[in-house]
Amino acid sequence: MSENGALPRRGKVLTVDTMNVNVKKVDYAVRGPIVQRAVQIEKELKEGVKKPFEEVIKANIGDAHAMGQQPITFFRQVMALCTYPLLLDDNKFPEDAKNRARRILQSCGGNSIGAYTTSQGIDCVRHDVANYIQRRDVGILSDPDNIYLTTGASDGIVTILKLLTAGEGRTRTGVMISIPQYPLYSASIAELGAVQVNYYLNEEKCWSLDISELQRSLQAAREHCNPSVLCIINPGNPTGQVQSRQCIEDVIQFAAKENLFLMADEVYQDNVYAEGCEFHSFKKVLFEMGPEYSSKVELASFHSTSKCYMGECGFRGGYMEVINMDPEVKAQLTKLVSVRLCPPAPGQALMDLVVNSPQPGEPSHQTFMKERTDILSALAEKAKLTEQILNTVPGISCNPVQGAMYSFPRITLPERAINEAKAKGQAPDMFYCMKLLEETGICLVPGSGFGQREGTYHFRMTILPPTDKLMILLNKLKEFHQKFTQQYS
Amino acid sequence: MSENGALPRRGKVLTVDTMNVNVKKVDYAVRGPIVQRAVQIEKELKEGVKKPFEEVIKANIGDAHAMGQQPITFFRQVMALCTYPLLLDDNKFPEDAKNRARRILQSCGGNSIGAYTTSQGIDCVRHDVANYIQRRDVGILSDPDNIYLTTGASDGIVTILKLLTAGEGRTRTGVMISIPQYPLYSASIAELGAVQVNYYLNEEKCWSLDISELQRSLQAAREHCNPSVLCIINPGNPTGQVQSRQCIEDVIQFAAKENLFLMADEVYQDNVYAEGCEFHSFKKVLFEMGPEYSSKVELASFHSTSKCYMGECGFRGGYMEVINMDPEVKAQLTKLVSVRLCPPAPGQALMDLVVNSPQPGEPSHQTFMKERTDILSALAEKAKLTEQILNTVPGISCNPVQGAMYSFPRITLPERAINEAKAKGQAPDMFYCMKLLEETGICLVPGSGFGQREGTYHFRMTILPPTDKLMILLNKLKEFHQKFTQQYS
Ligand SMILES: Cc1ncc(COP(=O)(O)O)c(C=O)c1O
Ligand SMILES: Cc1ncc(COP(=O)(O)O)c(C=O)c1O
Repeated sequence: MSENGALPRRGKVLTVDTMNVNVKKVDYAVRGPIVQRAVQIEKELKEGVKKPFEEVIKANIGDAHAMGQQPITFFRQVMALCTYPLLLDDNKFPEDAKNRARRILQSCGGNSIGAYTTSQGIDCVRHDVANYIQRRDVGILSDPDNIYLTTGASDGIVTILKLLTAGEGRTRTGVMISIPQYPLYSASIAELGAVQVNYYLNEEKCWSLDISELQRSLQAAREHCNPSVLCIINPGNPTGQVQSRQCIEDVIQFAAKENLFLMADEVYQDNVYAEGCEFHSFKKVLFEMGPEYSSKVELASFHSTSKCYMGECGFRGGYMEVINMDPEVKAQLTKLVSVRLCPPAPGQALMDLVVNSPQPGEPSHQTFMKERTDILSALAEKAKLTEQILNTVPGISCNPVQGAMYSFPRITLPERAINEAKAKGQAPDMFYCMKLLEETGICLVPGSGFGQREGTYHFRMTILPPTDKLMILLNKLKEFHQKFTQQYS
Repeated sequence: MSENGALPRRGKVLTVDTMNVNVKKVDYAVRGPIVQRAVQIEKELKEGVKKPFEEVIKANIGDAHAMGQQPITFFRQVMALCTYPLLLDDNKFPEDAKNRARRILQSCGGNSIGAYTTSQGIDCVRHDVANYIQRRDVGILSDPDNIYLTTGASDGIVTILKLLTAGEGRTRTGVMISIPQYPLYSASIAELGAVQVNYYLNEEKCWSLDISELQRSLQAAREHCNPSVLCIINPGNPTGQVQSRQCIEDVIQFAAKENLFLMADEVYQDNVYAEGCEFHSFKKVLFEMGPEYSSKVELASFHSTSKCYMGECGFRGGYMEVINMDPEVKAQLTKLVSVRLCPPAPGQALMDLVVNSPQPGEPSHQTFMKERTDILSALAEKAKLTEQILNTVPGISCNPVQGAMYSFPRITLPERAINEAKAKGQAPDMFYCMKLLEETGICLVPGSGFGQREGTYHFRMTILPPTDKLMILLNKLKEFHQKFTQQYS
């Protein structure tokens, strides 16, 4: 500062030197340099630039519709009816779709999906969510007052992390996240200035979660911060594992013992493919462990319209359920979400359809079930295919894709490639993925974007491309990996 | 902390004592206690509880559809087509609506509005926004790269404030906001831990903005923080004023001289009613002031689908244009918005329609123009009506509602009422509004929720109710005010 207390005049007010330092620390690999280069290459291809491939195949992001998956007819019918209610007189639309639309509109201000909703979300939608959870977690109650609708799961996750972030220095909130992780977590933790606390998933045991590793991580974190939050993604992104009931029980026990707030990211709850695997919600397991746990452990769980069989990412629908949250904190949460007025009403309506889909006997039931089953079976098939083909490549080893939408294979990189990457200041798997993109048009995300054990290298690949494209992708990848290994050996 | 460095075990992890202190400081009046009580009363009425009125009339929030305003037909037609593209074969829909829908879908991944969009927003929408701005600000270029689509204007405003918040203690970012203000500003400033710097609008001069007051406020703030941002709402919420071109020029000059980043909240740009008033965008005035200013002053301006004639709040559409933003900061901004993936695609599509509405010669043009004009003329009439009737009440004085959707009249409260309120720990105008609600069912927001000069009292009332309801409201209010004054005199 200058003599009189005024700041010195600069060319610009807002520069990288004056801006929010936490924002600068944010990293977001899923939409990072690889994806930016892919977009550029697509433009170049359009402009007629010659490349050794004809199209970019994007397997970098869990965006089903972008990969050609068709929306669920019933969902879109109801959404069209909500948007343009004159269609309620059109006999092209089935009665069950009309009933859903009428019910949603009656719950909207002025019967319009264009009105602000209450900040916590449309009443009838929150009731339907609670009913869905009760059906899913047979025998366990759910209270609509504990449901908050959100702008995608992302919004809910950031909001809960925001509530939890407090303290300074050694008392600053530490947030335990799995490594590899979905980078929303590290990004939000950085933005909020919380402390990221890593625990490693066990690649050797199919990316499972070891309590001893949680214990190690917690112990280490207590030396320098206040670790009070434990985040779990199940089924896992980027790792595709599905946790066993026993593991979930152990995690809950651990959280209870160590006084941790649990965040369960369950956006892939319908995406379970492997035999012997099943989705168990944290809520259900918690309540089945008896009142000692169910009356005590604080839990927020998250769901979304973006994944599962519907893949409606663009609508930004989602919900969270909060369990055992202090009522005063809940009031603060309600206040906080009211500042941005409300989540998008169409996303709320879509969330309603997901939790209140056509029932047996309703006119749309058969078509709905067929569409849903077809999508989920195709994903199961592609999960298997991906694992099998990748494992035929020397230098690539891939755990079973038990659930979610991703494989996260480990790749062996020649020493010379690692050195060349380091010389360029690049993570070795970034170097690998960038070369893959330039030579084949395949767009993946390097493992370094998600975190991995020091000295190991991975990439994340979605299983979403249509089977024929996926086959092309996997074969090109195989060929590339062999060439790359040769070239750098 | 206990001996071994571990924190003492508590009943709950997350309590009001352990939570984020900035969140606790957030205040949000528009959805505060009055509104919560109004919702309660509505429930009581439904349950048959006897009240001195039959319905709650909500004039607390700028939510046009909730007050019965009908959506623009063309907008909803295109949205239905985007949602359920099978309707593109339906001859009930006009060709221009179909063309718009096709164009938007072609810009979406997999031609689906259910795909994630790029984080900055759909390409063609950003181009259309830039074209709109160029038409609006005749002769001044707009670059689609400077356009970011947002989840309502709220999201854009919070994002820019987040970028700008830095420093500690005396170097902490100060954000200058008008008093009275739209409480999103004070709430976000509190949440981010920035410093709120108040400048007062001049009620005596129709809520205009005096540069000398800006100067005073800035000077005072420099004693304790680093005021580097100046926020303007034009047309004003809650005050309904429309700034003159001269005033905007003076503000820009001030910002240039004092090195302030300008944030222009222009969500009410089509809501100008008073004769002699006109909307001037900050961007246009900035560029008309010549390169000395236009190459230098940093500006972010905000627009929304929620206001104007469309009132599509539920879709959460919006955009911001950033001018003279440091390219490195822009890269940071793009990274930051990518963490939450993208704004809702339906909101983006709707924003596109607002900036690319039916043109002369297109089949929907006439209907569109009629609907638009009818809505805006009705608002203009209600603005006048509100001012006139309120000014007939002794003890209420109301500035002209030149624009936006609100009147913010000053009320004289008897000493005895003020004392009774204070004894209850309530702001006197909160006391007044709560009594009004209980006795008449009218739901307004007390001036204290927006800020006002010490010792003055106001309420904010929207002009959105249909004319007949507005008349009832105004007459009941008149009667109540007289009774209240008598009772406490
Ligand atoms: C594990 C996980 N959580 C949350 C999200 C956020 O999804 P959305 O915000 O679209 O609901 C994703 C998206 O890929 C995810 O993979
Ligand atoms: C001045 C002002 N800015 C911003 C907003 C936010 O609107 P939205 O987020 O719905 O676009 C409002 C809403 O009332 C407003 O009055």
